[in-house]
Formats: sequence, structure tokens, C-alpha cells
Amino acid sequence: MNTKVETPYEQLAKVFHEPNRLSIVSALCAAAEGLTFNELRDDCNLTDGNLNRHLAVLREAGVVRTDKTFVDEKPRTTVFITRTGLDRFQEYLTALQEVLKTAQKAIPSDKKAAHLSGALRAVTR
Amino acid sequence: MNTKVETPYEQLAKVFHEPNRLSIVSALCAAAEGLTFNELRDDCNLTDGNLNRHLAVLREAGVVRTDKTFVDEKPRTTVFITRTGLDRFQEYLTALQEVLKTAQKAIPSDKKAAHLSGALRAVTR
Repeated sequence: MNTKVETPYEQLAKVFHEPNRLSIVSALCAAAEGLTFNELRDDCNLTDGNLNRHLAVLREAGVVRTDKTFVDEKPRTTVFITRTGLDRFQEYLTALQEVLKTAQKAIPSDKKAAHLSGALRAVTR
Repeated sequence: MNTKVETPYEQLAKVFHEPNRLSIVSALCAAAEGLTFNELRDDCNLTDGNLNRHLAVLREAGVVRTDKTFVDEKPRTTVFITRTGLDRFQEYLTALQEVLKTAQKAIPSDKKAAHLSGALRAVTR
């Protein structure tokens, strides 16, 4: 193993980069009072099982915490982002912004430019 | 299975979203003449094995094509992005931009705001 400098691509922490977890953490950032399990599941278009699995990963990483209470004798789970989670998510978004900027700059301004015609080929799927 | 409308998170096509493939495809977008296997491996900070595996996924998806030639009796592999690949990568970047914008808007402007103090908690790792 060498000790190379981490590139922006390597900084895309896997815990946030997974699209459903990106969706979950975004939703929680906007919710100062937290979100119930059901709100989060519906906001993020997930099943109970999927949300449970992603929350386990996020809890394990210290990104979210969950509180269980009883409301009208029914159990209610509320999910919050932690301060550490918020800090790390901001770092992730900064890396993502950099990667996106690099990619957008790399796209040729005229995809049909003559010098590209050899390199690009229509591929039928 | 229901036929729900795809969210921007669901549009983050897995083929591009993997950080190393994001790096590979960005590098290829900027290279009208293609890149040799070795250039791409070094640009993206990958091993031969890793690059080979990612190129197989990208080739299978119709995103890249590879040409093998002989230069001074040595084999040389050159990798190009396809037109379809370029189009789909642009769609991916658009979805990514939207997801990033949503997340950036969701981050509370003052993380230390009093109303967040209950929701956020320092987590030591």
C-alpha cells in the first residue's frame, strides 16, 4: 500500500455517495426537528426494508441517530442527522461539487466537432 | 412492482456514479483523440486490474470502446468515449447537479442555530 494523496474521486465517501443515502441525508439536513421513519420513507420513495438498511449504515457511521417514542400508544421512530454527520456531509458535497465541475469542463462544447468524429461513434443499444 | 416516476436520485445511473468510473469518463470526455490504457490508469490513480474491471463495465454499457494497435511491435490499447456514452454522461451530470443543488439548499445556513441544538449532537468516533 502506498500513501498517495487522495483525489476528489477518492473523497466521495461511500456512505453518502449511494443515491438513496444521498436522498435520505438531504432530507434530514432540511429537517431541524428530525423526520419520522414514515415521513423519511415516503420522502425518499423507499420501502421499509430499504430505509432500515440504509439507516443502519448511517447510524453505524455516526451520521444519524434515531429516537423511539410512543405516541397514542403507537411506537414512533424519529431520525435526526448528527452534527458530525452534517459536517461530513458538507465535506462530501464540496468534493462532489469539484468532481462535477471537472466533468462539466471536460465535456466538449460542440459534441459534433469535426475532430471528434473519429473518436465518437453511435452505439445502438 | 409499481410504475412510480423516477426521482433525480434514481436517475444517478450506477454506471457513472461509481467514483472511479466518474473519474475515467471525465478524463475520456476531455480527450478527443482517446487515451491509452496507461495514460488513463495514471490519470485516474488506478491499478491495471481496477482499470480493466471498470472498462469492462463501461464497454458493456456502450459508454466506451477500446482499439488495440501495435506501436513499435508493442501492443497499445486506446480507449474512447462513444457518442452514446457522452450523451448519457451529460444526462447523468444534469441529474447530479440537481441532487447537489437540493442538498446544498438543505444544509442549514447556521449549523449552530439554537433550534438545531436538540437535533444535532456531537458524535465522537
